[in-house]
Amino acid sequence: MRITGIIAEYNPLHNGHIYQLQQARQQSQADLVIVCMSGNYVQRGQAALLDKWTRAELALQNGADMVVELPFVSAVQPADRFATGAVQLLAALGCQTIAFGSEQPTFDYQQAGQQIIDLPEQSAAFVDYQKTYATQLNEFYQEQLSLQIDQPNHLLGISYAVANARLAQPLNLLAIKREQAQHGDQTVSTAPYASASAIRQVVTQGTALAALQHVVPAGTLAALADSTLLTEDQLWPLLKYRIESLSLAQLRQVYQMSEGLEYRFKKVIHKANSYTELLQALKTKRYTYARLQRVCLYVLLNIQPADIQQGLQRTYIRLLGFNEIGQQHLHQLKKTTDLPIISKVSAKMGAETGLLGLEVRVDRLCEQFGWQSQNFARQPIFYHGKDEAHC
Amino acid sequence: MRITGIIAEYNPLHNGHIYQLQQARQQSQADLVIVCMSGNYVQRGQAALLDKWTRAELALQNGADMVVELPFVSAVQPADRFATGAVQLLAALGCQTIAFGSEQPTFDYQQAGQQIIDLPEQSAAFVDYQKTYATQLNEFYQEQLSLQIDQPNHLLGISYAVANARLAQPLNLLAIKREQAQHGDQTVSTAPYASASAIRQVVTQGTALAALQHVVPAGTLAALADSTLLTEDQLWPLLKYRIESLSLAQLRQVYQMSEGLEYRFKKVIHKANSYTELLQALKTKRYTYARLQRVCLYVLLNIQPADIQQGLQRTYIRLLGFNEIGQQHLHQLKKTTDLPIISKVSAKMGAETGLLGLEVRVDRLCEQFGWQSQNFARQPIFYHGKDEAHC
Repeated sequence: MRITGIIAEYNPLHNGHIYQLQQARQQSQADLVIVCMSGNYVQRGQAALLDKWTRAELALQNGADMVVELPFVSAVQPADRFATGAVQLLAALGCQTIAFGSEQPTFDYQQAGQQIIDLPEQSAAFVDYQKTYATQLNEFYQEQLSLQIDQPNHLLGISYAVANARLAQPLNLLAIKREQAQHGDQTVSTAPYASASAIRQVVTQGTALAALQHVVPAGTLAALADSTLLTEDQLWPLLKYRIESLSLAQLRQVYQMSEGLEYRFKKVIHKANSYTELLQALKTKRYTYARLQRVCLYVLLNIQPADIQQGLQRTYIRLLGFNEIGQQHLHQLKKTTDLPIISKVSAKMGAETGLLGLEVRVDRLCEQFGWQSQNFARQPIFYHGKDEAHC
Repeated sequence: MRITGIIAEYNPLHNGHIYQLQQARQQSQADLVIVCMSGNYVQRGQAALLDKWTRAELALQNGADMVVELPFVSAVQPADRFATGAVQLLAALGCQTIAFGSEQPTFDYQQAGQQIIDLPEQSAAFVDYQKTYATQLNEFYQEQLSLQIDQPNHLLGISYAVANARLAQPLNLLAIKREQAQHGDQTVSTAPYASASAIRQVVTQGTALAALQHVVPAGTLAALADSTLLTEDQLWPLLKYRIESLSLAQLRQVYQMSEGLEYRFKKVIHKANSYTELLQALKTKRYTYARLQRVCLYVLLNIQPADIQQGLQRTYIRLLGFNEIGQQHLHQLKKTTDLPIISKVSAKMGAETGLLGLEVRVDRLCEQFGWQSQNFARQPIFYHGKDEAHC
């Protein structure tokens, strides 16, 4: 069985994602396409527009055969750690190929990944406080390997390639040309493709959803119309309250609260009146907005280094949904994998120290805002309509 | 100079309080009446209806010559600790007499206080998990001293008497008969007196404030009409969020989270949909509602045992307001007291480890809900209108 994996957030799922699913299947001649998808929080440190179950169902409706959840400890991380968690999971799921979108599909990712891991250890050298870690890393690659990494999907592709090269048995890499919209384009045009961030902007700004009709499938449109959004405006009072009420020592215990960043939080919080104002007040040359946004989410969700360390050691396969082909593979996988395959979250599993304790805890916030139960009393979606969806 | 002290919350100040201020002055022939008043949080674990500055001003308008803040570490405590903090503060302020309302004004409080402190240490013996600490304490007093303590003001009076008897130089105790309304009466009748809790109920239930016209002074009515209330409904999302996001170990670090109460919080929080529902779900024979409500406030405000211990060691006199007579006493006091007298909160004083660090932190929550600055950039109210207010 040829199995191809895709790493995604689907925040929300749009036509570009459907194109990618189709191309991945076609170009790799896959019998099975598995999507490794972030849960309710995404890489940039925000809550997803739609809950993970809804997004998994949309993926199944639009070309995926199986959807598994990328755990929080990998999902809300910079590109390199995000890629490591996702690539390892796809490898554990039995994929032979990883497909991903790229602005440079002819680039030799396999080779670049290998070259990068052959470089001497470098991160300790990135101590220029006037530049972000990402900038310094890119400059280093540029110097050493003449790589120019200023396109977001290309950067992610290289991150996948590096994570892949580190596997005992690396998978094939399949770069798929992105259709028109560039990742991060901020407007929805008349073209059938728009970036997820442009789509999110339409949704969060309350523009009529009809404006998205030509860039997302009907299922996404319907789900967005029904959903309870967890916007930064809603989360802001909780974040402000938490920062105000924590002591410096407690704030310092938050994951990624390094280099005295906690003093900055405490200094600016009282005057900040919105999430955006806080991020602007925190911004320095040293940190990207994405990094600061993740730290804010870690504060909000009370994430400490031990949560991440323990989480990274607790490996498992969390099923969100599958179709009949996915199910066949699952039967096979159960015989061969060492990892627990989780369909149902037991009380023990969801307890604080359980395998899914962290997922349960972070999802409580979504549930407080009215999302239905995200872990307990849920089981993977079984999608019957594969044929219709593909015809 | 004859100085009489009163311990109060004024939540909100009503006609019964004015009567008490008048009687205290008259019966003790005081030249000066000092009120030691809770800040923005009261004994029962709630935010006050009006901020401390507004309440201090109302006190000055209605018969007090000086108002000082009872620090959070004493204000939000059971009767015995509340009394200890307040009585010590009044003693430090140079009072010769403590006046308080009572259902039994002829009772010999001085003697009872002395008898109680002469009893052997008993609290370690109160380990009946089917009864609250307060119940067991009362039963003990009843057995040992034939005291019947089932009236709330009488209980407070005895608490003051005990705290007073423990002073190196005890003050005089002056019990003043409460006018009509009993503490805790839940309705406002046509009489000119109503309990503060009955008045709060009218305010928080959104009944027209005109219903209070005959039981509170005009100033209180005007302030209530203008105020931003911090109701439990508003605080609930923050409390729920905090309990959901804390680990058991973190919850256990909260002040007064003892005997495994943190497990109960974690067990019931997910299904609770309001502050009241949470309290009902937490309630057992072992804990009073007041105790549980205080623990909820400690959770909300992130109060740990070290905060209380340090706070109790940081003694000071925090001025909220005074009139000319109060000012004269203040000049005298500055020469004789060892305690810092705080009129203005400096950055150092308000910093986390500063003398007023805890007050600043707990008041941030009020400020987040729109109350004006409660500590920085504020100075004591100087009240010019004493004569008019008394005529």
